[in-house]
Amino acid sequence: MRVDSSTIEKLKKKDKRIISRLISKVEANDDNASEILSDIYKTGGTSYKIGITGPPGAGKSTLTNQLTKKLIERGKTVGIIAVDPTSPFTGGALLGDRVRMNEIGMHPNVYIRSMATRGSLGGLSKKAINASDVLDAAGFDYIIFETVGVGQSELDIAKTADTTLVVLVPESGDSIQAMKAGLMEIADFFVLNKSDRPGADNAVMSIRTILQLNSIRDADWELNIIKAVANQNIGIDEILEEISKHKNYLNSSGKLVERRIRNNKIRIRNIVDNELRIEMWNPVREKFLDEKTPEVVERVISPFLLADKLIENYKSDNQ
Amino acid sequence: MRVDSSTIEKLKKKDKRIISRLISKVEANDDNASEILSDIYKTGGTSYKIGITGPPGAGKSTLTNQLTKKLIERGKTVGIIAVDPTSPFTGGALLGDRVRMNEIGMHPNVYIRSMATRGSLGGLSKKAINASDVLDAAGFDYIIFETVGVGQSELDIAKTADTTLVVLVPESGDSIQAMKAGLMEIADFFVLNKSDRPGADNAVMSIRTILQLNSIRDADWELNIIKAVANQNIGIDEILEEISKHKNYLNSSGKLVERRIRNNKIRIRNIVDNELRIEMWNPVREKFLDEKTPEVVERVISPFLLADKLIENYKSDNQ
Repeated sequence: MRVDSSTIEKLKKKDKRIISRLISKVEANDDNASEILSDIYKTGGTSYKIGITGPPGAGKSTLTNQLTKKLIERGKTVGIIAVDPTSPFTGGALLGDRVRMNEIGMHPNVYIRSMATRGSLGGLSKKAINASDVLDAAGFDYIIFETVGVGQSELDIAKTADTTLVVLVPESGDSIQAMKAGLMEIADFFVLNKSDRPGADNAVMSIRTILQLNSIRDADWELNIIKAVANQNIGIDEILEEISKHKNYLNSSGKLVERRIRNNKIRIRNIVDNELRIEMWNPVREKFLDEKTPEVVERVISPFLLADKLIENYKSDNQ
Repeated sequence: MRVDSSTIEKLKKKDKRIISRLISKVEANDDNASEILSDIYKTGGTSYKIGITGPPGAGKSTLTNQLTKKLIERGKTVGIIAVDPTSPFTGGALLGDRVRMNEIGMHPNVYIRSMATRGSLGGLSKKAINASDVLDAAGFDYIIFETVGVGQSELDIAKTADTTLVVLVPESGDSIQAMKAGLMEIADFFVLNKSDRPGADNAVMSIRTILQLNSIRDADWELNIIKAVANQNIGIDEILEEISKHKNYLNSSGKLVERRIRNNKIRIRNIVDNELRIEMWNPVREKFLDEKTPEVVERVISPFLLADKLIENYKSDNQ
């Protein structure tokens, strides 16, 4: 299936029905998906991508909600991709949160897409990135990825953003542990949410200490920690300010293009490797593997020789 | 390089110099490695593989040490592959431990190989499995994989064993958390080490509760919890007894072959996928990717079309 020009026109007008339909199609990630994405690809490229990640319960979706409200007040358009299983978008959170989120989702300048994490972790980052291509082609000013910073896949998604903010809370000694395990390297700045709670200043100090102990990723960019109380709308302007500062920094230093090149290389590599794996492991060779592996266990043939036979068979298909 | 018959003879006599040399060669994982492994592969198949895993500080290497001592007392031969960064074999532990381990390593019926985890996580399970092929060809009665149960790679190694035991200690509420995250599924039985400490009975109960809450992997095999105090040599006979019970169970039920077939399928798949990736990403196509990705960022070409071009180029090489 190719995308016709009337669909592209509707997409550019942010027709939510069209957006939803296209995202559903590209989520499938079959041959159609890559055709669709190729067709709409030239239309995109103007969205600025923000990653919001952090441990469960840090208030990421309340923050996403408040940031989005401010952005639409300023006349901006916002697409949200939520892959946090504890997020109200994906149904895991309190009813109150969910109602609030549905509210902003009704606004004509906001589109929200939620993705389940369970059972689909492998392909999750691919799905989220494909979906963001659709939102990008629709011309949203901002695309926000909200992900819970626990698995590799979620970190991969956050990493594809232009600016990534890591949300922590004062209580979470755990979350500071988590930082060491990956959140650390992807943050362009930190938000200490719920900073009206006891221990906020200590938490800021702990984060600073960890930052100092670790080598700095980018010597020209200072990793700030911004205090916020998202559900009281405190610190939201400061966060938008910091995003804008980071955006200017990336633009003026040439690092925006650098970062997008790096992310696209990873993406293209993944597309290629996945494609080769699909071609390699067709039913014929799957069956051959099933039939011959007992001989490996019986030491009739080595795993390496069997692997060679499979590869030879694959190559003979391509001749 | 092919392995000549005199080398194979020396290998079968467990000549430690030959074993070390061959393991170093297969660790490199180049074409030579697969030739060497294919040459010695038919010689192996008699070793029984034991995986010992668990959180850092659970006493895995003390346990490995004691089990090995008992086994050599019974006239058995033991090869040990230690991929635990906190293990005395790999240099991370207390001096006393390290001295004790070096002692058993001097015994003619014991061979110890340690592998660093840092910086080589991706290839670690491949290296460990390749090394175990060498030990298997040398004819060791038992091969013990000692791994710290924290990363996917270490879990993958433990999974390739015929019998896997997960070592926990009473204090570790953490370790019981960790169980949920993967250790759980790979255990054939549990060892509660340091069980002379307070809270041992509670820990056993917690583990049992978790086991009951989770679906049982194999309805015909009961997951036991064995209490031990490894540094006082308490519970070691019981552990060997349980290993032997599990071995008999696997043999009589046909599940040993089943398990080895499953593990070999995973291994062969990995060999094939890795081989294809190496062929795919040769310097010419790496360069092409480098040169063309900026055009993807500029929206001249979509990532999918660029991926197609790369695959076409790869296939034209095979014609």
